[in-house]
Amino acid sequence: MEYAKTQRNTVKRGRKKASYDQDVIHSILDQNEICTVAFNVDGKAQAQPINFGRSGDLLYLHGSAKNRMTSILAETGEACLSVMTLDAMKLTRSAYHHSVKFRSVVVFGKVRELLTEEEKIEGLKTIINHFVPGRWDHCRPPNAKELKATRVLEIKITSASAKIADTPPVDEPEDYATDYWAGIIPVRTVYDYPVADDKLQNGVEIPAHVLDFYESKRRKS
Amino acid sequence: MEYAKTQRNTVKRGRKKASYDQDVIHSILDQNEICTVAFNVDGKAQAQPINFGRSGDLLYLHGSAKNRMTSILAETGEACLSVMTLDAMKLTRSAYHHSVKFRSVVVFGKVRELLTEEEKIEGLKTIINHFVPGRWDHCRPPNAKELKATRVLEIKITSASAKIADTPPVDEPEDYATDYWAGIIPVRTVYDYPVADDKLQNGVEIPAHVLDFYESKRRKS
Repeated sequence: MEYAKTQRNTVKRGRKKASYDQDVIHSILDQNEICTVAFNVDGKAQAQPINFGRSGDLLYLHGSAKNRMTSILAETGEACLSVMTLDAMKLTRSAYHHSVKFRSVVVFGKVRELLTEEEKIEGLKTIINHFVPGRWDHCRPPNAKELKATRVLEIKITSASAKIADTPPVDEPEDYATDYWAGIIPVRTVYDYPVADDKLQNGVEIPAHVLDFYESKRRKS
Repeated sequence: MEYAKTQRNTVKRGRKKASYDQDVIHSILDQNEICTVAFNVDGKAQAQPINFGRSGDLLYLHGSAKNRMTSILAETGEACLSVMTLDAMKLTRSAYHHSVKFRSVVVFGKVRELLTEEEKIEGLKTIINHFVPGRWDHCRPPNAKELKATRVLEIKITSASAKIADTPPVDEPEDYATDYWAGIIPVRTVYDYPVADDKLQNGVEIPAHVLDFYESKRRKS
């Protein structure tokens, strides 16, 4: 299934790298804990990083009930956010062709603030389980006071695009005769072995869902 | 030296994590090859990742002369961009206190499109040397045709803020008696050993500036 190509999400530069496939887009979103949201303050666009969760074509953001960004997003009812994973730096013989291997997604969506305790809990559960799969069942759920202090937003993806650049460095034909070095520097995000808090109760071991998360990231890197 | 605190860049949530120190802000910017820019398309805020360079309080972006984002930024004359480095995932006994260790920067600036060949070359040199220090002297500079096809923007930072979160996980006092596991999962960006392009001229070895870059990233990770 693909997200609809609209005037907003259609990739104009680097079309060959573009994908509108939902599985591709969701998979890139799921590799990331943090996205960057764009929002307007007094008509001026502003970028800010925030963590998020995904379930199907719904994304969830949360913040303090006093947070400006989530307040503005709830008010405008629309959101755009992006994620990017850097996979390699491409060094070419010409300055012009320097580039990167990457996977990025830009998402546009309709924002709805979740107002009932039940809905807020579902949103937060998605965020925590996106952070570390299975985590929600292994921590204390939010109480009434914590829920009240938290704004939770649901973003229904209306359109989205991915860009995947994974081709090797390319130079102009005449530059291959030069002695400049060209190549790539691979880049990886590494999640190290979990470090226990020093105030754990006696006998509490690293649980399976945390080790599974560590192993899943290790396989990918 | 600090960037001025204005209504736009003053951090309201998590004030203790905030810094306006220029050295801190510049250093976080320099650890990143890619930023996310916010810009308006028909009055709607949009987020998009792009690579950048820094020299003093000047940032540089470039793109195809046909690129929409850089065209809009040149037109509006203002830009906001952000970078974020994720350092660790913080898993707490309560869902509420889950968090991350991170270093982020949000920058606001005045945009000026560089129009002369000399200015464009200076901007591109900054971008290439931000990518890999010293790289500019070891690749072919852009020719007239390449320069013409490239839009180069200079962004003078007018205000900026950093947020640095590096404190250990904290839970509510009553939660310490529970058997939930808490701890951190450290996260690092690793730059692997450079891989040479297979069409290099005979005898071309990995140059010192590329090995220096690799070593500098290794020391930090």
